[in-house]
Amino acid sequence: MNRDRPAYHGGVPTATPLAFDSAALAAVAYNADGLVPAIVQEQRTGAVLMLAWMNDQALLRTLETGRTWFWSRSRQKYWCKGETSGDRQFLREAYFDCDGDTILLVVEQEGRGACHTGERTCFHRSFDAPPE
Amino acid sequence: MNRDRPAYHGGVPTATPLAFDSAALAAVAYNADGLVPAIVQEQRTGAVLMLAWMNDQALLRTLETGRTWFWSRSRQKYWCKGETSGDRQFLREAYFDCDGDTILLVVEQEGRGACHTGERTCFHRSFDAPPE
Repeated sequence: MNRDRPAYHGGVPTATPLAFDSAALAAVAYNADGLVPAIVQEQRTGAVLMLAWMNDQALLRTLETGRTWFWSRSRQKYWCKGETSGDRQFLREAYFDCDGDTILLVVEQEGRGACHTGERTCFHRSFDAPPE
Repeated sequence: MNRDRPAYHGGVPTATPLAFDSAALAAVAYNADGLVPAIVQEQRTGAVLMLAWMNDQALLRTLETGRTWFWSRSRQKYWCKGETSGDRQFLREAYFDCDGDTILLVVEQEGRGACHTGERTCFHRSFDAPPE
C-alpha cells in the first residue's frame, strides 16, 4: 500500500476516478465466465474487508467512477457497494497480481463497514476452536 | 487481525498447527469445482501477498500443519507455498467470510516474499497511468 497518497480530508469521502494505463487493463486475465476476483482492503487500517467478483465492465466502472462496482453471480447484475446500505467504498489504489487473475482494490470505507452483517470486515469469523 | 498474538521470536519461524472448530470448517462453501479462494495476508505489515485456491483437503492440511497448502488448478495437484523456493508461509490466523466462500489466511512470510518474481507481494503492479 502506498501510505503517502493523501486520502483523508475530513467530512464526506470523495469519489475520485483513477487514471489508469490501458496496457495494465489488458493484462487482466478473466476466467471462463469472464470474471476475476477482487479483494478489497481498507487503506487506513490494512484490514481485508471483502472479496467480490468483477467482469471487465465492473473494473472499468470502478476505475472511472472511483466507487467499487462488482458483478453479482447470483443476481447476474452489476452492483455498487454501499448503493443501498450507504456503506460506500471510495477507491484510492488498484493493483493486479503477477498472473493478472486477481485484483486488489485499496479503499476508504465509509460508514459501519463492508459486511452486510454490520461487522467492519466480512472476515470476522475465525476457524479457531473456542477456548475450553 | 489479532495483533495481540505473539508471532515473532527471532530466528527461523515455527510451523504451528491451528486448533480449529469443525463447525467452522463445515461452514466453508466450495464452488462447483470444490474450490474456494484463499487470500494470504502478512501479519506483520498487513500487506495482501497473494490469492490461491484451496479444496477441503488443502484447507485441512493448512490448519493441521501450520503451513499454507493450496490446490493448483493448472497442475491439478497440491502445492505447499515455499516448498521449492524456500519462501515459506507460517499460518498465524485463519478466517472465513460471511458467505463462507472466501478464506483469509494471516501468515508470517519467510524469505524474500510471496511472489515468484521476487517481489514481496504478488500485487506489485498498479493500474495507475504512468506519470506524463
